[in-house]
Amino acid sequence: MAKPKEVTIYDLARKLNVSIATVSRALKDDPVVSKKTKKKIFDLAEEMGYRYNHFARNLREQRTYTIGVIVPRLNSYFMSTVIAGIESVVNNEGYTLLISQSSESAGKEVDSAKTMFNNRVDGLLVSLAYETDDLAHFDQFVKKDVPIIFFDRVADHPDGTSVLIDNRKGAYESTSHLIAQGCKHIVHITAPPKRNVYVDRLAGYKQALADHHIPFDEKYILINNLSQEAGAQAAAAILQMNPLPDAVFAANDNCAVGCMVALKKAGIRIPQDIAFVGFNNDPVSTVVEPNLTTINYPGYKMGEMAAASLINHLNGVNSIDATNTILLRSELIVRASSLKTTSDSE
Amino acid sequence: MAKPKEVTIYDLARKLNVSIATVSRALKDDPVVSKKTKKKIFDLAEEMGYRYNHFARNLREQRTYTIGVIVPRLNSYFMSTVIAGIESVVNNEGYTLLISQSSESAGKEVDSAKTMFNNRVDGLLVSLAYETDDLAHFDQFVKKDVPIIFFDRVADHPDGTSVLIDNRKGAYESTSHLIAQGCKHIVHITAPPKRNVYVDRLAGYKQALADHHIPFDEKYILINNLSQEAGAQAAAAILQMNPLPDAVFAANDNCAVGCMVALKKAGIRIPQDIAFVGFNNDPVSTVVEPNLTTINYPGYKMGEMAAASLINHLNGVNSIDATNTILLRSELIVRASSLKTTSDSE
Repeated sequence: MAKPKEVTIYDLARKLNVSIATVSRALKDDPVVSKKTKKKIFDLAEEMGYRYNHFARNLREQRTYTIGVIVPRLNSYFMSTVIAGIESVVNNEGYTLLISQSSESAGKEVDSAKTMFNNRVDGLLVSLAYETDDLAHFDQFVKKDVPIIFFDRVADHPDGTSVLIDNRKGAYESTSHLIAQGCKHIVHITAPPKRNVYVDRLAGYKQALADHHIPFDEKYILINNLSQEAGAQAAAAILQMNPLPDAVFAANDNCAVGCMVALKKAGIRIPQDIAFVGFNNDPVSTVVEPNLTTINYPGYKMGEMAAASLINHLNGVNSIDATNTILLRSELIVRASSLKTTSDSE
Repeated sequence: MAKPKEVTIYDLARKLNVSIATVSRALKDDPVVSKKTKKKIFDLAEEMGYRYNHFARNLREQRTYTIGVIVPRLNSYFMSTVIAGIESVVNNEGYTLLISQSSESAGKEVDSAKTMFNNRVDGLLVSLAYETDDLAHFDQFVKKDVPIIFFDRVADHPDGTSVLIDNRKGAYESTSHLIAQGCKHIVHITAPPKRNVYVDRLAGYKQALADHHIPFDEKYILINNLSQEAGAQAAAAILQMNPLPDAVFAANDNCAVGCMVALKKAGIRIPQDIAFVGFNNDPVSTVVEPNLTTINYPGYKMGEMAAASLINHLNGVNSIDATNTILLRSELIVRASSLKTTSDSE
């Protein structure tokens, strides 16, 4: 299983009986080489499997026309929507995406960054893992002037631009909406508050309570990985609470839905007994019954914005160096899961 | 915005005042270079941002320790589960995944293959786009002895191994189950029957009808992209049919769920009026009411199997050259959406 040897410009030159300089110039698309000779060289390069990253366009401009994307997980509707938004922009510009997931691990994020660096991506789009503390693995990109844009889960990196929504505001609106429905014992299900998105949503939840003179109670904060299964486990914890909470604000829809389904099985009526608000506006929010009130998170738009900023920077159209943060609009979508006032109440 | 120049072994040699040959040997981990000198060279290489893919391990073994994955779309629970299975295996072996999506476009699949090739992946895992006819873009890998494994949406490539389930059998069981529930007018919603998975499911559906002496009717085959929205549109088409069909077998759960939700809104009772079977066993199948009968598709296992075959081949443990197809087990999971016999019937 020995590998065949890598094809070099020497091989191409020998085979065509031209000089190495001619091959090198042809691959750089130098006008001194005739079109006919260039075609011969390109055809042979293709035929022999000469690796394309040595080709003219890349050498000339020092670009590989690949953009790296590092995300925590690929298993969410939100993330696949962001990636679709990114692709809609970069494909138009002739770039290919290379995607890597950190699986929420700091170590895997470091490995992914190394792989992206070694593959010479022209730019990097990153949403951080839960676990990441240190950002040193991005320094290699900064040193090489490879631009980095953080999205959703962002970092306060002096050389990175961030694209995000106002998570604090979204959570504030969600919680205030539940309070307006008469809820006073509001559980907040969230992930470990290490990343901005969870820190900010918790802050918004607390602020809404404070503004409505409802004391904050630590026992109402349930921390998990926000999966559907974790939502079912949170339901078990909620059923143990005395008195029963009258509302749940979950930091994503998946977890809210898992919790709702489990509570319904236990005979809890939604929203009459417990009202629900999620986050993201995933398609499942209109499948679960009652339909889930949630924050519409413009993932596609976020992908487009992050990618467009990166491409504009690479094309010298609009540098990101002066831009620190791009904030996108989000909105509360009220559905039946939270409407206590119009449902049969006890 | 000029890029800093790429660091070369010349730069390392000059800075350390050693010969180029010494640097080159050190990077190849040649024992003639002292450990002390090697450490100095490695440290400087790190500091100056010398690109790691020139480093010892890779040069010595001609490996990059990256595996390329090309998938049609990242927006499905099934695909993210497969990728999780792949990662569980390759990460253990010190490999990083580079993922690319074709978005169901043959042209984008060609571009992705080119990018993977230029990034010198050690192996390739591929699930084909709807549109792909020609497999010539994989020839470059075969020429370089870079192993390819197809999964789920596979190709009859003489040099590729395929990992899949028996789609025909799954569809046969689904359809036979609906027939056993008394259904005679069974709609099949599927994607364009170009790829094996859809061709085989359609064949299984037809075979089950034939074996139960139910005539096949072309008008019951609805072709779309299997999204939740497409399911809602299929519902509109179903409502126009006269007589109303008594069952739907959809080629994925997402589409089944979109169709169910829309039909329920139109006053159709499930399963009494129309019974439903999906495919994949996505989490949404236990959220929709009634819960969806479906085929459990072992995505995680599929990812593990595909990755393990590739890694074993790369490690020389077990060549894939003699293996054409690996078939995984799937099973029908019966839930309330298809149980006419135990529901209130008209």
